[in-house]
Amino acid sequence: MNIAIIGATGYGGVELLRFLQHHPHVHHCSLYSSSQDGIHFSESFPHVGEIEGAILQKIDVEQMADECEVVFFATPPGVSSTLAPTLIDKGVKVIDLSGDFRLKDRSVYEMWYKRQTASDHYLQQAVYGLTEWNKEDIQKAQLLSNPGCYPTAALLGLAPLVKERLIEEDSIIVDAKSGVSGAGRKASLNTHFSEVNENVKIYKVNSHQHIPEIEQMLKAWNERIQPITFSTHLIPMTRGIMATIYAKAKKELSLETLLDLYKTSYEDSKFVRVRKPGQFPATKEVYGSNYCDIGVAYDERTGRVTVVSVIDNLVKGAAGQAIQNLNVMMGWDEESGLMLAPIYP
Amino acid sequence: MNIAIIGATGYGGVELLRFLQHHPHVHHCSLYSSSQDGIHFSESFPHVGEIEGAILQKIDVEQMADECEVVFFATPPGVSSTLAPTLIDKGVKVIDLSGDFRLKDRSVYEMWYKRQTASDHYLQQAVYGLTEWNKEDIQKAQLLSNPGCYPTAALLGLAPLVKERLIEEDSIIVDAKSGVSGAGRKASLNTHFSEVNENVKIYKVNSHQHIPEIEQMLKAWNERIQPITFSTHLIPMTRGIMATIYAKAKKELSLETLLDLYKTSYEDSKFVRVRKPGQFPATKEVYGSNYCDIGVAYDERTGRVTVVSVIDNLVKGAAGQAIQNLNVMMGWDEESGLMLAPIYP
Amino acid sequence: MNIAIIGATGYGGVELLRFLQHHPHVHHCSLYSSSQDGIHFSESFPHVGEIEGAILQKIDVEQMADECEVVFFATPPGVSSTLAPTLIDKGVKVIDLSGDFRLKDRSVYEMWYKRQTASDHYLQQAVYGLTEWNKEDIQKAQLLSNPGCYPTAALLGLAPLVKERLIEEDSIIVDAKSGVSGAGRKASLNTHFSEVNENVKIYKVNSHQHIPEIEQMLKAWNERIQPITFSTHLIPMTRGIMATIYAKAKKELSLETLLDLYKTSYEDSKFVRVRKPGQFPATKEVYGSNYCDIGVAYDERTGRVTVVSVIDNLVKGAAGQAIQNLNVMMGWDEESGLMLAPIYP
Amino acid sequence: MNIAIIGATGYGGVELLRFLQHHPHVHHCSLYSSSQDGIHFSESFPHVGEIEGAILQKIDVEQMADECEVVFFATPPGVSSTLAPTLIDKGVKVIDLSGDFRLKDRSVYEMWYKRQTASDHYLQQAVYGLTEWNKEDIQKAQLLSNPGCYPTAALLGLAPLVKERLIEEDSIIVDAKSGVSGAGRKASLNTHFSEVNENVKIYKVNSHQHIPEIEQMLKAWNERIQPITFSTHLIPMTRGIMATIYAKAKKELSLETLLDLYKTSYEDSKFVRVRKPGQFPATKEVYGSNYCDIGVAYDERTGRVTVVSVIDNLVKGAAGQAIQNLNVMMGWDEESGLMLAPIYP
Repeated sequence: MNIAIIGATGYGGVELLRFLQHHPHVHHCSLYSSSQDGIHFSESFPHVGEIEGAILQKIDVEQMADECEVVFFATPPGVSSTLAPTLIDKGVKVIDLSGDFRLKDRSVYEMWYKRQTASDHYLQQAVYGLTEWNKEDIQKAQLLSNPGCYPTAALLGLAPLVKERLIEEDSIIVDAKSGVSGAGRKASLNTHFSEVNENVKIYKVNSHQHIPEIEQMLKAWNERIQPITFSTHLIPMTRGIMATIYAKAKKELSLETLLDLYKTSYEDSKFVRVRKPGQFPATKEVYGSNYCDIGVAYDERTGRVTVVSVIDNLVKGAAGQAIQNLNVMMGWDEESGLMLAPIYP
Repeated sequence: MNIAIIGATGYGGVELLRFLQHHPHVHHCSLYSSSQDGIHFSESFPHVGEIEGAILQKIDVEQMADECEVVFFATPPGVSSTLAPTLIDKGVKVIDLSGDFRLKDRSVYEMWYKRQTASDHYLQQAVYGLTEWNKEDIQKAQLLSNPGCYPTAALLGLAPLVKERLIEEDSIIVDAKSGVSGAGRKASLNTHFSEVNENVKIYKVNSHQHIPEIEQMLKAWNERIQPITFSTHLIPMTRGIMATIYAKAKKELSLETLLDLYKTSYEDSKFVRVRKPGQFPATKEVYGSNYCDIGVAYDERTGRVTVVSVIDNLVKGAAGQAIQNLNVMMGWDEESGLMLAPIYP
Repeated sequence: MNIAIIGATGYGGVELLRFLQHHPHVHHCSLYSSSQDGIHFSESFPHVGEIEGAILQKIDVEQMADECEVVFFATPPGVSSTLAPTLIDKGVKVIDLSGDFRLKDRSVYEMWYKRQTASDHYLQQAVYGLTEWNKEDIQKAQLLSNPGCYPTAALLGLAPLVKERLIEEDSIIVDAKSGVSGAGRKASLNTHFSEVNENVKIYKVNSHQHIPEIEQMLKAWNERIQPITFSTHLIPMTRGIMATIYAKAKKELSLETLLDLYKTSYEDSKFVRVRKPGQFPATKEVYGSNYCDIGVAYDERTGRVTVVSVIDNLVKGAAGQAIQNLNVMMGWDEESGLMLAPIYP
Repeated sequence: MNIAIIGATGYGGVELLRFLQHHPHVHHCSLYSSSQDGIHFSESFPHVGEIEGAILQKIDVEQMADECEVVFFATPPGVSSTLAPTLIDKGVKVIDLSGDFRLKDRSVYEMWYKRQTASDHYLQQAVYGLTEWNKEDIQKAQLLSNPGCYPTAALLGLAPLVKERLIEEDSIIVDAKSGVSGAGRKASLNTHFSEVNENVKIYKVNSHQHIPEIEQMLKAWNERIQPITFSTHLIPMTRGIMATIYAKAKKELSLETLLDLYKTSYEDSKFVRVRKPGQFPATKEVYGSNYCDIGVAYDERTGRVTVVSVIDNLVKGAAGQAIQNLNVMMGWDEESGLMLAPIYP
């Protein structure tokens, strides 16, 4: 099968390529870049070496539609909402790693993103690709909206609690910590090594665009869920997200009950691993892999549940989950091309 | 004035020395170490160079009592509770950077620290050295118990809210992130570079010994305060603590009111700097200095206050605050020897 | 095929497992540990998850000989020289990642390692596994001595120059920079995060045990080679070695000639990639992979050649090259199980 | 005394301010910025807090000449060569941290910097501010050209060997490793955290503009010195330079002789510290301070001397040495305002 990657020279794009190069069902990737067309991919990323035919091409939607069955967008806001409709109309499958199709309500999108997005027609047919919980819809999707990195970590951690209605609906707080690669490859003072190293920063306090994305899914699971508090911190590391999640239990719980619930919820999910009592995952334990590792605690003193959910933001939080969704959409083994162990240390 | 440092070869000790070397009222520091007596300090720490008389001495309480007016303990649990009483009885002033004298209730200490501590007699006379809020008692103290690094960041961030009773008493959550130097200089797998770098870990979930220390002070300010949720994360950096604090407002607040309260609360405190609306401090902005920087947000969607409080764990969280307390105890300018600007970048 | 790993809980061991898990010709790995036998591997390394049968076993050479065709030693000095002879005598193939069998001359070993090693009988039959240059001998080896991390980077960078006798024999200087994982997983002050982070250190000046290993191979290629200067620096990163190599050209050279030589030397080597004129590799460009990337410069002002050679110390510098040697020893495709792309960023 | 800083919002500028704020002889610093005039300095650098009068001003040379006795340039190439002549002509003292006035020969400047610089008139009166070795000239200087960071580390390490003619004149190789802050505060892909972290890069191979600066000084000390090999590596840390220096001894030396020479050479230099036999400095041991620490080795096997010289690139390699030069120019104590101990860890 031929696939195309638009935005191949960003971190999401290069990570898609890392996995797709060894994917058993993908024969060829065409790489597109609006800024670097004409040059060989290895000029930007010498680590990939000499891949045959890896010349970056100018974005040409018509050509893509002729040559490829699936197109991945690993692009900044506003690109996929502009280009994807033509591809959709021509019958191409689209997997969008940007936020353009994630929010069903355009006014919510505009409020949080401060810009316009696609028309309702396309927004409504977009399927939200949180693979573990939306598999049926994903199987039928033509337009797949891949979740944000933070929402992936937060939602996989919250799902069992929210669906089972074990926690107070107005008590959810997510304190998230992310590596720097989540900010993309564009150079800025915020990603300057000397500003990030030996430093922890909070950013976009109460205003991160992933807040409505998380709430939309939580409300789909339990309509009573109230607005959440969600904070994002920049940590001096390249990869990894940890979401530390706090919520008040409706009634007294036991750690055993909680862990049973999580184990059961994810027993068929190859990529979600629940830790033993008293053990919690570190981000490095999923480094470079598609795993989401989860640890759970219950505190009798406060009646609060603490859930710790970690992912590699570029894999399960972006390229890996996108390929997982590709696998589901095509009816392939969900794990195809994704069974790489984390790199440790 | 002559002072002594016990535990001079730990990170707390070497940081005490960095500031005391240039302190206008301190003439000589005697350095004591149980493990390295007889060698010159610069053997362990070449960065200090040739300081005259910096031979590490064997711990001898009698000799100290003869030669020094003030003794600093920068030691592991159990040392100061054993040695300080003799010094106290001989009229020496003691400033203890360990946790031995922080909790007034011995049973609480034993539950969280899993060991015994000093007798009630000494516990009761120990003054808790959160300088900004306990100045009157500190002026009269002979035995000063210097706050823990996390409690310093958390309490300075919480004080105005709790004292003014603006928040629900059962709603406090503190999500804290710390650099590795907080774990001390002892080598262990937990501080191994290859295990810490490119990694975020949560540890001691719901069981950190700083929880009762924070709660003790909060209850002294407002007896209705309920048990808090307090989480600690290890971040791949050497210095710095950020406490991200969440609490539910009792009634609707405005950011303006909140910032006014914080500005007023700390207007006489040289070392606490409150940020402008919409601005939040990063740990690097206090690096190497005795500052605690604070930013505040109020979220109308959730009715929650978010407070971000950052310190250098080895300075305001340890050696710096200890010297600030020394200054207050001796009646000197509170800032003596401490007015070093943060190092940036 | 069944294989065994002795020293499975070190960084070399866990990296062997990462690659062997997906190796097409390896059916089962038995894991041995002298310090942690009886526990499941995932207790030490949660990132690997639930691998069936990954209980760490007590080292039992007889049992290994019965069950396994190949035994890997990823052990500290002195272990393989003690245990390997029995395995060899029983016909088992041994691949040793330690330095025990690398030096042919016992007195040289004793001078640099300050300890004794195996008897001459076994030393002489050991084949040095610098795969790209010793393939014929490796194919016939029963006892394979895997090169050190530094020697791998240095020798692959020097080989074409030395074999073609293009450089003055007394002019070789290798300035090497290594990540911390090269020091192993044992906790020590030298690997403490707070001591390594924001720091560069030189160590073992003129006394590193890899010096005789490099010289032995260089002299095998050109007996006139004189003692080299070789310096090792500890860099605040987990993985990666860069060897910056300096040597005086015997006569004027051109960059074109040099690059032709390198391209030709390695044209059949999948894992050695030579950069274009003016381009030099960074360690991150081989991260997690078995590649050795090389860049070359010639300076007309000084008449010196500069070669920059980078590897991942745990892969091409240890586990990866060991598996590459396994592949050659067994007559399999040299790349089997090793074609993972570097992780970037 | 009033001084001015042009380019106050770069890393050199902010570091000048850190030291000058506490300088006993400096009463007021005026801060100038071409890009951010009109805003308060703390908007760019919240860590400095509320300094009275720290509004960034538009560059106005006439005004500066009226108000200030000394002007520091911490600016990109081309600024000081344009603006300084007016100040010089008006009798203002100028200390230039850029490279504009470092090379006496304009054609050499143009070859290495690929741009034009000041006229011969000003180049010839500029005094090169390697304080330890040029003190007499510095005392009389009106235009002081502050050395580059790499040349400072390299020259302080080489001086005793070159002046005493102990080494072969064509044998000098300097392998330098630098933290990222040396590249300035401008955002670029080369300083992006995700590209720098877990990575070592070599850059400007055989073409760094500091090469002629080092050679010019070496030749002033010994006219027979031949072109040197000088390599620069980017290391994942914020501050610090290590220069590892290799040279062939003319005749057999002893470590004792060498160390005696270094100790004697620097016995009157407060800021150069020579290590004991067998000990070598790490960059962290001078962090945030004006020290240059030096270790020396002699290898009998190769007849080569290895010198390890470390500085904080922003202090002794920039702002600190500039203030040291200010002190000498004004006849003040050379250490005024500079006696801060390194921060460790």
